[in-house]
Amino acid sequence: MAKKTAIQPTRSEDYPSWYQQVIKAADMAENSDVRGCMVIKPWGYAIWENMQAALDRMFKETGHENAYFPLFIPLRFLEKEAEHVDGFAKECAVVTHHRLEPGPDGGLVPAGKLEEPLIVRPTSETIIGSSFARWIQSYRDLPLKINQWANVVRWELRTRMFLRTSEFLWQEGHTAHATKEEALEETRLMLDVYADFAENWMAMPVIKGEKTDGERFPGAESTLTIEAMMQDRKALQSGTSHFLGQNFAKAQEIKYQDTNGEEVHAWTTSWGLSTRMVGALIMTHSDDDGLVLPPRLAPKHVVISPIYKSDSDRGQILDYCKQIENALAEKSFHGDPVKVMIDDRDMRGGEKKWFHVKRGVPIRLEVGPRDIADHKVFMSRRDTGENQSIDKNEFIAEAVNILANIQNNLYERALKLQKENTVRIDSLDEFKAYFTAKDSNKPEIHGGFAMSHWCEDPAVYKVLEELKVTIRCVPFDEPEENGVCIFTGKPSTKRAVFGKAY
Amino acid sequence: MAKKTAIQPTRSEDYPSWYQQVIKAADMAENSDVRGCMVIKPWGYAIWENMQAALDRMFKETGHENAYFPLFIPLRFLEKEAEHVDGFAKECAVVTHHRLEPGPDGGLVPAGKLEEPLIVRPTSETIIGSSFARWIQSYRDLPLKINQWANVVRWELRTRMFLRTSEFLWQEGHTAHATKEEALEETRLMLDVYADFAENWMAMPVIKGEKTDGERFPGAESTLTIEAMMQDRKALQSGTSHFLGQNFAKAQEIKYQDTNGEEVHAWTTSWGLSTRMVGALIMTHSDDDGLVLPPRLAPKHVVISPIYKSDSDRGQILDYCKQIENALAEKSFHGDPVKVMIDDRDMRGGEKKWFHVKRGVPIRLEVGPRDIADHKVFMSRRDTGENQSIDKNEFIAEAVNILANIQNNLYERALKLQKENTVRIDSLDEFKAYFTAKDSNKPEIHGGFAMSHWCEDPAVYKVLEELKVTIRCVPFDEPEENGVCIFTGKPSTKRAVFGKAY
Repeated sequence: MAKKTAIQPTRSEDYPSWYQQVIKAADMAENSDVRGCMVIKPWGYAIWENMQAALDRMFKETGHENAYFPLFIPLRFLEKEAEHVDGFAKECAVVTHHRLEPGPDGGLVPAGKLEEPLIVRPTSETIIGSSFARWIQSYRDLPLKINQWANVVRWELRTRMFLRTSEFLWQEGHTAHATKEEALEETRLMLDVYADFAENWMAMPVIKGEKTDGERFPGAESTLTIEAMMQDRKALQSGTSHFLGQNFAKAQEIKYQDTNGEEVHAWTTSWGLSTRMVGALIMTHSDDDGLVLPPRLAPKHVVISPIYKSDSDRGQILDYCKQIENALAEKSFHGDPVKVMIDDRDMRGGEKKWFHVKRGVPIRLEVGPRDIADHKVFMSRRDTGENQSIDKNEFIAEAVNILANIQNNLYERALKLQKENTVRIDSLDEFKAYFTAKDSNKPEIHGGFAMSHWCEDPAVYKVLEELKVTIRCVPFDEPEENGVCIFTGKPSTKRAVFGKAY
Repeated sequence: MAKKTAIQPTRSEDYPSWYQQVIKAADMAENSDVRGCMVIKPWGYAIWENMQAALDRMFKETGHENAYFPLFIPLRFLEKEAEHVDGFAKECAVVTHHRLEPGPDGGLVPAGKLEEPLIVRPTSETIIGSSFARWIQSYRDLPLKINQWANVVRWELRTRMFLRTSEFLWQEGHTAHATKEEALEETRLMLDVYADFAENWMAMPVIKGEKTDGERFPGAESTLTIEAMMQDRKALQSGTSHFLGQNFAKAQEIKYQDTNGEEVHAWTTSWGLSTRMVGALIMTHSDDDGLVLPPRLAPKHVVISPIYKSDSDRGQILDYCKQIENALAEKSFHGDPVKVMIDDRDMRGGEKKWFHVKRGVPIRLEVGPRDIADHKVFMSRRDTGENQSIDKNEFIAEAVNILANIQNNLYERALKLQKENTVRIDSLDEFKAYFTAKDSNKPEIHGGFAMSHWCEDPAVYKVLEELKVTIRCVPFDEPEENGVCIFTGKPSTKRAVFGKAY
């Protein structure tokens, strides 16, 4: 008989439903009454706040400053860059009126029609570019390196919490440079920052590479990406960094006087990472008992549950818990105090345990009268499920190491999955079999990553579309080698990563 | 002849223009190409980030959690509370379409009409209330104490940077409680948090009190406010905390089962503070040379300008500056390291000095070859304009005290202005004279605060409207006393604060 799990269905039974249930069980978010928009609840938002804090520090350390630009973009701005507007016109929220007045049926109707419609920003290249054009006059004003934390809206028909919602939260970096080389360097630097964040904070291994022509950001000359593998072996694009060349600079007249006194166009970049990463975090580490959090992003590292039957025990046990909390608060885990919560709610022990299991708290401690007598605590690790009774002082001394060990274990586990499910494929038949084979025990599992030779021929994209497979990226660390495109037989010098994707 | 000032016009010449020029000279913000929306530039945004960090900590310490709710509010939600919708219908951005398509003239036009228009949130009581109604079932779910950091939109016709813009950034707290008493306590607690923030971080004295009937938040039973006096003696409402009674709970069915198993409505509150505070900060402390910042909110506490004529001097001087920077970084000012910036840009000394004067950096140091020989630094204080050559080690030892002294001096200076310009007025003639007297040297100065007896009679509001004076609040710490309304002669037991207002 299968082990009873806290989340139903399990990952292997129905991965998409499992994902929704993990979010619900961890109380991270819910669908709202507004089409396509979600409510991010405190536990989910606290994870996003931790992500923001880590990234914001990294952006500042690499010389970027935060600023804030308007939510609304005048239609004529969006129209300036042709590819860009094509990319976003089909899914945007349009503001057409600026007040409400009583209508013929008594209810309120839009009134005060705007002369020019305003688009709720789907991304801010055009509106930020219009500021850059004012701010940049001379080579002395460059580089200009700005980041914005903001909400954006892309009208999505099929939404899934965190992964695809009409409104989402993100950061968008926008920079301008004097030379092409500097802009390319920045594009790559910020991709490296994202990869560092994914691997060292999220414990999520990623493949760094460049998007192919069909997958580029609308208006970009080149889009760099980090791609991660989820537990159903589908790919999730996790952060992108765009080299915009002079496209936006020309569309928006971002010009500067160079050292020779000549007026030339700047070179720009943009890069973004969103609340989608919370979805990636869930799908990378969680299990059939719910959320599993890497300690570096967990809102709480340790939860302590006092267990007592009488009021006379209560005081003594709470004191003991407090001692542990205070001792841990003096320990530093990556520069911050260990975050401890004592959960003294009146709730059955089992119920309380599962409450924190489902929310992914890395370490749980239980403290009862016997533990105090023996100077012990009963410790459980969320990542491995191991639990043991250990000496209180030993736990305090080891707590930071245990957290580091959990962080590392989650990364290694995810890396193993990625490596085991990435194969080099050199024939189209094998490629098709890889992406269509069904494992009847795991109906939601879709092949994995395939590394294959390819070429930029429409025939390639036709086959891929039929298979519902996409080229995730051309990875940086794949060596050049002579081969032939498995779709067309044309010569190829490099493999790309293929996968089904979110 | 008047002293030459960095800001033209001066405060006494033209206060509103002075305000705009201070913002421009400090490079804090600019008007955007979008009607009514501003761009917050890095120096202005860094001040807002410091405000956010201080407030966020205070909210968490008082038991609130952050969450995030949709940007869009369905029209039917807004309509649920009658006063509320009346208050916001006249100035809101309405989304009516969800895509763009080519129009008859070749340009793009709105398409995909929504069945129900969406309002860009002017405040979130209604949309957050719909979540609260789902989250709250039992008395065990209460109190529920949530805060959101977000952008909101109120379509303003006449805008002024930071003070009144169509889009602005703010935080909005929303809480639900089991009893009226608890909700009233929360309303007052959060007003006290705002007052603490205003006085101890912004160095801006405030008067705490309750709004009168005509000035309440649409839908609230009671609105508490902190009111500050700007240097032109006008009032600025700086943060409000609303007791919503059961109005929104009834409109939105926020109900819970009490300890007797009966289903009853919850009691709710909301409270908000916005980027308007950056405007308040500017108008409270700045002078005719530009921005003056209280150290607790300054992005940089100390700027060090190395002064050298030869490359051989340069290395030695930069080392000396670095030593000071490192020594200061180890000092703690209110729990954070002292924030130092070495400005080694190639720029004329006078130009560099004024750059930082206009941006309000609390302490400026200049270091030249002579200073090194004498183990000194040349220090200037932004608040008093004093400057002196002092021993380097003495400066390092005293830096935190000097910052505290500047913080305190700014507060005392603002408090003195407020006290000197607050008068008790007991006759209507005197009241009228106070608010209409013109000082030909200071055309922008408008009386100040008047403390007078009043009553809730329409005749009172008629006189006030003619004078362009409003009742700012009924202050908490004004004692009850028998008097007569200066407008109607009716009996009154308490004075209110009157003033012209932003």
